[in-house]
Amino acid sequence: MKRSKKKQKPNAKLWGGRFTEDLNALAFEFSKSIHIDKRLYREDIAGSLAHIEMLAQKGIIAPSEASQIGRGLREIEKEIDEGVFPLDSGQEDIHLAIEQRLFEKIGNVAGKLHTARSRNDQIATDERLWLRSAIQTLAESVASLQRALLEKSDAHFGAIMPGYTHLQRAQPILLSHHLLAHIETFERDKSRLRDALARMNFSPLGAAALAGTPIPIDRHKTAKALGFAGIVENSIDAVSDRDYVIEFISACAIAMMHLSRLAEEWVLWSSQEFGFITIADAFATGSSIMPQKKNPDMAELVRGKTGRVYGALISVLTTMKGLPLAYNRDMQEDKVPMFEAFDTTKQCFDIFAEMARSTEFHESEMKKAVHRDFSTATELADYLTKKGVPFREAHEIVGNIVRFCVAERLLLPDLHLKTLHAFSPAFDDDVFEYLNPEKSPARKKSAGSTSPKEVAKQIAKWKRLLNLN
Amino acid sequence: MKRSKKKQKPNAKLWGGRFTEDLNALAFEFSKSIHIDKRLYREDIAGSLAHIEMLAQKGIIAPSEASQIGRGLREIEKEIDEGVFPLDSGQEDIHLAIEQRLFEKIGNVAGKLHTARSRNDQIATDERLWLRSAIQTLAESVASLQRALLEKSDAHFGAIMPGYTHLQRAQPILLSHHLLAHIETFERDKSRLRDALARMNFSPLGAAALAGTPIPIDRHKTAKALGFAGIVENSIDAVSDRDYVIEFISACAIAMMHLSRLAEEWVLWSSQEFGFITIADAFATGSSIMPQKKNPDMAELVRGKTGRVYGALISVLTTMKGLPLAYNRDMQEDKVPMFEAFDTTKQCFDIFAEMARSTEFHESEMKKAVHRDFSTATELADYLTKKGVPFREAHEIVGNIVRFCVAERLLLPDLHLKTLHAFSPAFDDDVFEYLNPEKSPARKKSAGSTSPKEVAKQIAKWKRLLNLN
Amino acid sequence: MKRSKKKQKPNAKLWGGRFTEDLNALAFEFSKSIHIDKRLYREDIAGSLAHIEMLAQKGIIAPSEASQIGRGLREIEKEIDEGVFPLDSGQEDIHLAIEQRLFEKIGNVAGKLHTARSRNDQIATDERLWLRSAIQTLAESVASLQRALLEKSDAHFGAIMPGYTHLQRAQPILLSHHLLAHIETFERDKSRLRDALARMNFSPLGAAALAGTPIPIDRHKTAKALGFAGIVENSIDAVSDRDYVIEFISACAIAMMHLSRLAEEWVLWSSQEFGFITIADAFATGSSIMPQKKNPDMAELVRGKTGRVYGALISVLTTMKGLPLAYNRDMQEDKVPMFEAFDTTKQCFDIFAEMARSTEFHESEMKKAVHRDFSTATELADYLTKKGVPFREAHEIVGNIVRFCVAERLLLPDLHLKTLHAFSPAFDDDVFEYLNPEKSPARKKSAGSTSPKEVAKQIAKWKRLLNLN
Amino acid sequence: MKRSKKKQKPNAKLWGGRFTEDLNALAFEFSKSIHIDKRLYREDIAGSLAHIEMLAQKGIIAPSEASQIGRGLREIEKEIDEGVFPLDSGQEDIHLAIEQRLFEKIGNVAGKLHTARSRNDQIATDERLWLRSAIQTLAESVASLQRALLEKSDAHFGAIMPGYTHLQRAQPILLSHHLLAHIETFERDKSRLRDALARMNFSPLGAAALAGTPIPIDRHKTAKALGFAGIVENSIDAVSDRDYVIEFISACAIAMMHLSRLAEEWVLWSSQEFGFITIADAFATGSSIMPQKKNPDMAELVRGKTGRVYGALISVLTTMKGLPLAYNRDMQEDKVPMFEAFDTTKQCFDIFAEMARSTEFHESEMKKAVHRDFSTATELADYLTKKGVPFREAHEIVGNIVRFCVAERLLLPDLHLKTLHAFSPAFDDDVFEYLNPEKSPARKKSAGSTSPKEVAKQIAKWKRLLNLN
Repeated sequence: MKRSKKKQKPNAKLWGGRFTEDLNALAFEFSKSIHIDKRLYREDIAGSLAHIEMLAQKGIIAPSEASQIGRGLREIEKEIDEGVFPLDSGQEDIHLAIEQRLFEKIGNVAGKLHTARSRNDQIATDERLWLRSAIQTLAESVASLQRALLEKSDAHFGAIMPGYTHLQRAQPILLSHHLLAHIETFERDKSRLRDALARMNFSPLGAAALAGTPIPIDRHKTAKALGFAGIVENSIDAVSDRDYVIEFISACAIAMMHLSRLAEEWVLWSSQEFGFITIADAFATGSSIMPQKKNPDMAELVRGKTGRVYGALISVLTTMKGLPLAYNRDMQEDKVPMFEAFDTTKQCFDIFAEMARSTEFHESEMKKAVHRDFSTATELADYLTKKGVPFREAHEIVGNIVRFCVAERLLLPDLHLKTLHAFSPAFDDDVFEYLNPEKSPARKKSAGSTSPKEVAKQIAKWKRLLNLN
Repeated sequence: MKRSKKKQKPNAKLWGGRFTEDLNALAFEFSKSIHIDKRLYREDIAGSLAHIEMLAQKGIIAPSEASQIGRGLREIEKEIDEGVFPLDSGQEDIHLAIEQRLFEKIGNVAGKLHTARSRNDQIATDERLWLRSAIQTLAESVASLQRALLEKSDAHFGAIMPGYTHLQRAQPILLSHHLLAHIETFERDKSRLRDALARMNFSPLGAAALAGTPIPIDRHKTAKALGFAGIVENSIDAVSDRDYVIEFISACAIAMMHLSRLAEEWVLWSSQEFGFITIADAFATGSSIMPQKKNPDMAELVRGKTGRVYGALISVLTTMKGLPLAYNRDMQEDKVPMFEAFDTTKQCFDIFAEMARSTEFHESEMKKAVHRDFSTATELADYLTKKGVPFREAHEIVGNIVRFCVAERLLLPDLHLKTLHAFSPAFDDDVFEYLNPEKSPARKKSAGSTSPKEVAKQIAKWKRLLNLN
Repeated sequence: MKRSKKKQKPNAKLWGGRFTEDLNALAFEFSKSIHIDKRLYREDIAGSLAHIEMLAQKGIIAPSEASQIGRGLREIEKEIDEGVFPLDSGQEDIHLAIEQRLFEKIGNVAGKLHTARSRNDQIATDERLWLRSAIQTLAESVASLQRALLEKSDAHFGAIMPGYTHLQRAQPILLSHHLLAHIETFERDKSRLRDALARMNFSPLGAAALAGTPIPIDRHKTAKALGFAGIVENSIDAVSDRDYVIEFISACAIAMMHLSRLAEEWVLWSSQEFGFITIADAFATGSSIMPQKKNPDMAELVRGKTGRVYGALISVLTTMKGLPLAYNRDMQEDKVPMFEAFDTTKQCFDIFAEMARSTEFHESEMKKAVHRDFSTATELADYLTKKGVPFREAHEIVGNIVRFCVAERLLLPDLHLKTLHAFSPAFDDDVFEYLNPEKSPARKKSAGSTSPKEVAKQIAKWKRLLNLN
Repeated sequence: MKRSKKKQKPNAKLWGGRFTEDLNALAFEFSKSIHIDKRLYREDIAGSLAHIEMLAQKGIIAPSEASQIGRGLREIEKEIDEGVFPLDSGQEDIHLAIEQRLFEKIGNVAGKLHTARSRNDQIATDERLWLRSAIQTLAESVASLQRALLEKSDAHFGAIMPGYTHLQRAQPILLSHHLLAHIETFERDKSRLRDALARMNFSPLGAAALAGTPIPIDRHKTAKALGFAGIVENSIDAVSDRDYVIEFISACAIAMMHLSRLAEEWVLWSSQEFGFITIADAFATGSSIMPQKKNPDMAELVRGKTGRVYGALISVLTTMKGLPLAYNRDMQEDKVPMFEAFDTTKQCFDIFAEMARSTEFHESEMKKAVHRDFSTATELADYLTKKGVPFREAHEIVGNIVRFCVAERLLLPDLHLKTLHAFSPAFDDDVFEYLNPEKSPARKKSAGSTSPKEVAKQIAKWKRLLNLN
């Protein structure tokens, strides 16, 4: 009458009673998750330890049982740490793998571990614990890139470059100012991660399958022991929810979008056409056929991997769409995207930080570029505005001048005052200092602008915030 | 030498000077955004009013000019409100439409409005202002559904239903408990929206094109006047960033995912097979061919529209991928998804709240269902655990009992103690009260569980939080 | 006992009998689709005409009834064409709007039109008919861009430019060859659209709600009359399927991906750094603040709109995920993405074709670029290979030479034979003709290569295929 | 002067000459792809064999060199097959791993293998070859599920069930008819895969880096040897294109969408509420806490994994967006999604086919369901139509009857003729045979309908097409 308990079907242990037939081998392969969720073993054991201690404190199991189980779990953790107990060999999932090993080590008392909990609340606990630390790790990777950019920003303070809109040269800016814009951007990524962390930091443990348990457990105690800010207050929500995964991946997707923009710029800037930076040989690769090639592969890969994280986001959103409460097995599919988003995003920020540190910025090339265009045209319009010409009219006048220059193949500093007068009588001798692009940034007055004074303020602020001396 | 200023090419006004040729008609149609961004006219005018007042306070324009422009703008707002000044008729975008109308009304002094700003910082200001109020509106729609569910939860307090996992009956729960799970879920949506709001509530105004401006404006003053918490601190970031759009849509996507789950349940529950609810005729539609049909169309449409919001999210993420700083015209494509996410999400929450209020819950059908299955099997295992049987063993024993019942076409309450004894000697007379599913919820003890006591606590909490009496 | 038939609830006509209450106003607004599906009126009427004719031929309705209905429908089509009968004013959907107008025109005999069909098969028929013609239109837009590129390819035959990989200069290529690569790409888009068309060109008409009909209709007859290749052979599949929408949008998404790559190139090429092309003033716009700006807005918008079409794809895929058969109201949400994908894709190809025609290519700038780098390094390696050096060794030697040149700030043609000999004794006098990048393309021998001979062949082929003289 | 060639930086072999520094270890880890592309080793070797043979035939390398290299490659393939030569241990990618092993085996002549090709055309060749066989494998998996469903369709011919729209009972249909609808659906998936195959079956080999090669190779010869239908005709397109990957994943995504619909149905049908099927114990799993549970995990996982494939699609579309021609390193990111789409889709179809074969269909439960509702209401309306009542009026009458029944808690067969007459005088004695749902299917007349005659025809057709006896 009993379902046979073959070694390779350990799950029979968990829920064999009702079944007359073993799980089909293909079905086992299809549904197992140990090869993926084994990454959660520390969190799984931490959760179990908190749970077992609480059970003993509440008198639900005997203290001696608790310490037996606790000792067993700690040993198993060590075994896994050291590779002595190999996961991913025929178990269904991480919870089961650990529990079965516990049976082997301490016998039937192991069966008490699963008192008053279910794999449904257990996996949710594991994931939240894992994400908590993943977020901290990732935020540090983001900060590391911020620091690398800040160092460059600091080192090249004063260097001028063309600012772009529409990838057309717009106005001269400080290179530092441009790099600081990315630092601001990444700061929002960290802030988004922090908010996600705060929102997920509640304990689902003890929700059991979905309805709670008749056993008088203390969920607040386990929550506290595990460092959660409190408990998830509705047991059905506790096992139905995967917001924490999605919000995390969404934050990663936005961060990767930011990084892809920086990567795009470095691909452009290291091209022969721009020539603004040289990526160190150690972060570039060559071609198997073209001996002269030195390619910005890391930046390209970062840009390309953005797709992976977007894909991970759509993956979980799709999986969760239209699922009735509470737990459904579909939800097992949240882990691959969660891990993939973390790994990819972290790796991309790390490599970019490393690469940034060894990248050379060519101040002279950037300065040369600034002199080769019309990027002081806005100054000229501002000049006219100061002389009382309404802005729209000033804009029109300068536009005409630029058109004239383009036709005559001249640049603005090439023009004589007489020529300028033909376009507007408001021009005066003092106009010429407005035509030197190198003087442009310093003339900016507004808060947050590219003026060296403002940029220096920003650098100081970021040094403080990022603990950089 | 001048570019011709035909009436239908008003943009010539803005940047005609440099150009020798008018914008191609097809290109104008392709690139204009007035039919979309006209929705931002109030925000655009509010931004301009704050800007112009600051310009006067700083002595950049004369007070009389400021009041002329201010009066003009207020009149234009009224004209648009009243439909007197029709937008979407040949203008390029909302900024230009308003400015040109201002020229018509007050003449050349209108040209001073655009002093020390660009459309790049202007649109970012408009969007942030619009989203600020959109988020508040949307949060209210979410709260409205929460209240509708809470009313039902309150009204049906005590009603029992099958709790599901894997859409298989799991354990008896209170209907109220289930509805409260959705309320928790939606609370996270509001919290996510609030975080997004806090992160975006900074003023980009005065960043100008990207580099700031030589004109001595006070960005803090306009920020304050517009209710922002501060300024975006880097002018390049100010015009390059669209995080606020993406984070908003991401929050909408998660909210829609939640709503799609509720919608799925109502589609199931209103089916002949479940029969748990009846949706009011006013929220159902029939078939053009099958006279008996009454379909849960609103729930289906809500579920289906989830796709639209996911699509909006991918849309902006894709658009922003790999764009170098600062503004690029691609970014104009952020508005359709932003509006679509807001409209769809709001409409879905609103309709669901309305529908929920008029939906009948059939307590008797739910109760009948609970009696027709094995949902007290877990009680039975818990019973054995209390008698000292390790949980895993208890689970196996009860599994065997269920298998026996399935084969014999019996339910658990049909069993005699003698039969139970054949499975385990630990069974006693007191087992039978564990087999009544209606008594199951009250036996739960854990915080957040489905026990009436815990559920009552939750209802009280939510009444307080949602201001429901 | 009757549901009231207020004018503004015309749907009561369709399925009022079973209902005791009118549709809630909010619910009506939420669920109506007339503002979207009105675009299908011609297809809807075409389907009805074929249906009614068949009904008469099969003796199901009287010939006089058929001709009355037919005349009515044709008049309605004319009314809509001419804007006399305004759609989108209180109707639920296009089917109903037309049918109700028919009632107004011809009285109760209009009721016979809906014999043996349902809105479920009707909408599927409408969509397939619409897509059939949309695909042909779109393919023509793609072809138009191909022709514009081919004209440029032909006009600039012989012009040389740097070929890029990783956005680093790789080898000299013919500009024509590069443009032809895009033409190949777009040809696959057309082929993909054609396959989608062939797969969807089957008639669902007569499937009725899902089960077919007891009325002895002839589905083959209507299929033939409507130009379908046959009938959808399973009536449940006929009303459950939306593959045709998804496959169409998927083809659009791939086409937009292609176009975004071309757009990216034109943004790059029109930058000051590349300077390879000048986009006509008629297809560029300026800045409201920077008078000198001329931006490649059309290319940027095309690149940005790629997001919209990707979003549309995810939208429908999400909507259809997990829907049981047969028709579910969720499926109504297929139309916005379908129309949006079509409109966006068509508009983007059209504008690009127009822009391409008026874009100037600067052969001299491209040629200058080719001379400024190491793009003949591969030639040099190939040269050594011909002299018997294994390719891998040749590659290493040339790599060393390039490294030497970079350090010494030399280009390859600057080297003396003596210097070359220091790297390999295999170099000989004949090496120097390999160092002229302008001679590089002609040396290529492989099919499909950038050699003028091969490129000329391709141009000839495309002229033939695209009917260009 | 030489870059050091440490063992762990084998890529130095490929492109070391120009570099002064080894690749950073983190960068190597980040950019290597051997752990992913090792799956392509057979295709890579097949491509090399065809290439080397052609080189010899064209006299570019000596016959003896070719046979040396060929022998070496065949040995390497065997080594990998047998696990003797472990991949994924410090190599950069599969091409390099094989080539370096070749050097070890046959010495410097190995260097001739890379004559006239690049990794750019090599990887494109490998992928196309791999996909060609992947598509055939996948099509067979789809066919296998079709056969499993066809067997069930055949075995249960005649069984009746409720047909659903909006998940509301609509009309009685044959179970076989419903299953056949899925078979039709999957046939389109196979057809889509076939089209993708035909479009990708062209050889990029010999395109070299992007420009072709001066070495007089014969691309048609290698194309033919590798079973391609021809060559990719433009060498730049050959290395820039990844359409084949995207189109393949898109076809997988649509197939998964289809499968998710079937999976949703099986989740519903195996619920206590529907009770239409029993999934075999071998394809279900239990709960760790609830002993009675038997969950349809395989169907749920299939439904959930749909997200993975959608994610893969968005992943590659995003990666390719906005990339200039020709090869960019971003494109390396196409492989994970390609393999993931294949593996997931294949696995899901395989498991579903297996599960389907062992699933029990409960004809009696389905029949019972049909008797418990109003699914013959359409018959009744059709009956009235036959009696000359216009369809719209008939629909209204029957709607009223249903409303009456709902209020009185009656079913249609419970009504007396007198009661029916109160609704319409057109009713007659013969009406009652229309009220038996079991007779409903047979009354359908239209092609493709649920009438047993039509369904039998479909079964016969599919048996023929799927080679099922």
